[in-house]
Amino acid sequence: MRQAGRYLPEYRELRGDRDILETIRIPDEAVEITLQPLRRMPLDAAILFSDIVVPLVATGIAFRIEAGRGPVLDEPIRSLRDVDRLRPLEPEVDEPYTLEAIRALVRELEAPLIGFAGAPFTLASYLIEGGPSRDHATTKGLMFADPPTWDALMGALVDVVVPHLRAQVEAGASALQVFDPWVGALAPAAYRANVLPHMQRLFDGIADLAVPAIHFGVGTSELLGLMREAGGDAIGVDHRISLDRAWERLGPSTAIQGNLDPTVLLAPWDVVEREALDVLDRAGGRSGHVFNLGHGVLPDTPVENLQRLVDLVHARSERDG
Amino acid sequence: MRQAGRYLPEYRELRGDRDILETIRIPDEAVEITLQPLRRMPLDAAILFSDIVVPLVATGIAFRIEAGRGPVLDEPIRSLRDVDRLRPLEPEVDEPYTLEAIRALVRELEAPLIGFAGAPFTLASYLIEGGPSRDHATTKGLMFADPPTWDALMGALVDVVVPHLRAQVEAGASALQVFDPWVGALAPAAYRANVLPHMQRLFDGIADLAVPAIHFGVGTSELLGLMREAGGDAIGVDHRISLDRAWERLGPSTAIQGNLDPTVLLAPWDVVEREALDVLDRAGGRSGHVFNLGHGVLPDTPVENLQRLVDLVHARSERDG
Repeated sequence: MRQAGRYLPEYRELRGDRDILETIRIPDEAVEITLQPLRRMPLDAAILFSDIVVPLVATGIAFRIEAGRGPVLDEPIRSLRDVDRLRPLEPEVDEPYTLEAIRALVRELEAPLIGFAGAPFTLASYLIEGGPSRDHATTKGLMFADPPTWDALMGALVDVVVPHLRAQVEAGASALQVFDPWVGALAPAAYRANVLPHMQRLFDGIADLAVPAIHFGVGTSELLGLMREAGGDAIGVDHRISLDRAWERLGPSTAIQGNLDPTVLLAPWDVVEREALDVLDRAGGRSGHVFNLGHGVLPDTPVENLQRLVDLVHARSERDG
Repeated sequence: MRQAGRYLPEYRELRGDRDILETIRIPDEAVEITLQPLRRMPLDAAILFSDIVVPLVATGIAFRIEAGRGPVLDEPIRSLRDVDRLRPLEPEVDEPYTLEAIRALVRELEAPLIGFAGAPFTLASYLIEGGPSRDHATTKGLMFADPPTWDALMGALVDVVVPHLRAQVEAGASALQVFDPWVGALAPAAYRANVLPHMQRLFDGIADLAVPAIHFGVGTSELLGLMREAGGDAIGVDHRISLDRAWERLGPSTAIQGNLDPTVLLAPWDVVEREALDVLDRAGGRSGHVFNLGHGVLPDTPVENLQRLVDLVHARSERDG
């Protein structure tokens, strides 16, 4: 999950009022922001500071950041003709700043660096809605009403995401996260018909890379089996399903990342400790458990709670060997 | 699920630019809007046109409607002292317009009328966030950090909701819906500790009424068993879980309302038909199935699709006896 962010005063200071997409395009700043949380806490990995729309912007899709809303697109993609505006990503040409930041980070870091990409469903929703959406109604409406356009768009997005992921590994990233926070809006049958084949092509496209990939979603309790079928070495699970139930669904041989509710970190430490220990207990010391929040760190999170949480999880891992 | 709304031109015409809360307080208009969908389609029940914040506004909580956003509250409730601003509802005094509309409707209607209320978690989120929220972070943060304030607020909301529901039945409503669209934001253990006891008190407070109650949520795949434990004669289930899986979780003796994805209705009829038949097949002709959308009708829904859907479901029910 994204580690950097507004909960760190040094992040707010560095970013100032600048557009996030502009900041990401300055390698020195992306490097610095990526390192900020690691200076505060002995994290087991660093996550590249970037945004899921970056590779789309890099191919000429004119997202801009609207304050308080996020990435918006004035001319959304809603027809087969619109899909022609997308083209496969050529990372060295289109997003050299991403690769430059990664190369600088791996020189500096002792911890492994995780690269990432948005998954096609979540990216499609941004493109079709023209921005963040609560119900993804236009996206799903197009998916149901116009399967040829849907499949063309999802296919075009795989051709952006796969080169983006491959290039991050070639530049030095030692793990990948495929980030599908909005796919939980779908019924299982709709996921199987309209998303699964594209996700399989995506994971096939990175299968030869010698790095683990985490396949992450939110609100995906009923999609977990299908997500595993789609691909990924670990499945990200949010707090909406208890970790023991998630393992029942996925089988004991699947690695799971998760799943503390990030809002817990707004509470006093004794509550954070109780809830984190509950997650660890439900993981039952399985070696396939990657402790994490179920979603990103909230802006009002006290840094001290995060620091103590990292120490707690490390102490527990050492105890359990 | 709410039947009236922006998908009907006669609704848009009647409402004009007027504030929804103002319209609800005019019994003639609430009656007319409640009847509009029934003039278009032979629905099996009518649902009172109202809003979940109505009983709160009726006790003096100053929600106002902000265009494009929904009900907002300039002074949110975030402390034990703030909770004192809530008081139990006295329906005959506080919301005579609601009861007047119901009495007029039952005189006119042949179909049963369903009354409803927001559930305490969803209402608490409106009060704490000060409006609609995507992640309910402030709400859940308060829930984790300050259980005494949380429990006082949830208790005070039960004391608004129970009289609101009872008065609707006394005025003539022949079924009730308890509407908790946002509770799916919680982990199962958090629901059990912080919501379940209050929901049990709510359902205990209407248990002596001789009308069925539907307990509805969104994104509640992992909460279904706990919701049944809380109460209600039928459990509302959205499209995120397939109906056969939902019955596995709830047991065959539980009635289920659901669960067509409302975005399906934006597609051509053959897609609507295929998806509706899939829902009916998964229900397997169980008498405890109340066919419905998993959530409200979307504004862009073609009326003809809804009309044909009602006919399809009726034809299937007759065939299956």
